[in-house]
Amino acid sequence: MGLKTITVRTEHPQQFIDITHTVRLVVRESGVTRGTCQVFIPHTTAAVTINENTDPDVKQDLLNILETLVPSKSQYLHTEGNAHAHAKASLIGPNTMVFIESGQLVLGTWQSIYLCEFDGPRTRNVLFRVTSG
Amino acid sequence: MGLKTITVRTEHPQQFIDITHTVRLVVRESGVTRGTCQVFIPHTTAAVTINENTDPDVKQDLLNILETLVPSKSQYLHTEGNAHAHAKASLIGPNTMVFIESGQLVLGTWQSIYLCEFDGPRTRNVLFRVTSG
Amino acid sequence: MGLKTITVRTEHPQQFIDITHTVRLVVRESGVTRGTCQVFIPHTTAAVTINENTDPDVKQDLLNILETLVPSKSQYLHTEGNAHAHAKASLIGPNTMVFIESGQLVLGTWQSIYLCEFDGPRTRNVLFRVTSG
Repeated sequence: MGLKTITVRTEHPQQFIDITHTVRLVVRESGVTRGTCQVFIPHTTAAVTINENTDPDVKQDLLNILETLVPSKSQYLHTEGNAHAHAKASLIGPNTMVFIESGQLVLGTWQSIYLCEFDGPRTRNVLFRVTSG
Repeated sequence: MGLKTITVRTEHPQQFIDITHTVRLVVRESGVTRGTCQVFIPHTTAAVTINENTDPDVKQDLLNILETLVPSKSQYLHTEGNAHAHAKASLIGPNTMVFIESGQLVLGTWQSIYLCEFDGPRTRNVLFRVTSG
Repeated sequence: MGLKTITVRTEHPQQFIDITHTVRLVVRESGVTRGTCQVFIPHTTAAVTINENTDPDVKQDLLNILETLVPSKSQYLHTEGNAHAHAKASLIGPNTMVFIESGQLVLGTWQSIYLCEFDGPRTRNVLFRVTSG
């Protein structure tokens, strides 16, 4: 299968957006019943992670914890004001992978896939490749 | 090959458990001689990493460093007492990948694969898929 | 395709080295036109990440931020003086993956692939496997 790109419009400077539903649609559309779904973020101030899908407080805690670790406003060399966002992007990482069985994503009960925006609001792309095997 | 699941019983609230031996068995059982072993943690308060396999102090340092960065007891919104564990899980990440050559995991001399428990003790699953190519 | 190994000589104790050009050569040499390039670091005090390729200040900010989070000199149990480097390696991670389309790496406009040295200078290996599909 070729690459699939989805576009996500983020609404806040820093935000976790649940993209699990969209990933399920990409997998269904691929027709792959057993394999892997690789996810890649082609940006340097955004990332992708997998975490709790039920209590929205967890998303906010994660954002707050990252902000404590790497404050938006601090003494950085990069003068565009988003040095913190570059660091958060590398701490979380630009890619992830989820298994597919019986045509379904294999996620734990509490897991969702999140696009992590650290320098929004922006229009972001998320790339996918679904492979059999 | 289908997914392979192993179960690990953790013994402490926060703990790194070396699962390399088990991953080697999974790879051997797969019969794959050249390819990749993908690893996925289906939990939101555990993770997987690769790090030093010799001096057990490194494991403890990593746990201590993560605890300094994200204290177990602090002001979090999520009221279950494990917000720190969710954050540590996303900082380390839920998946990894190791190459296979000649039927063996390709790891550096000092590398082992660790299940990272951040909200134990619990029974944890680790998922694997070994693919050729 | 078999594993491909490249060797990188780092020059500083802590350093991000852009290896994108070398990865492009590995992909070209593989002859794969559509697929993935998996990258693995067989070391426990180095890592790989993808981040900004234009302003070199971003690299220095990332190193400074990681040093603030995990100081080189602090109270660690591991007595070799590189406990901080082990922690930074697990925070950034030992592997990444980039898609290939039309024989080219699919990277965002601002993305480069970096070998992250945290305990140099040393000679480091970076492993690659390029697969079709």
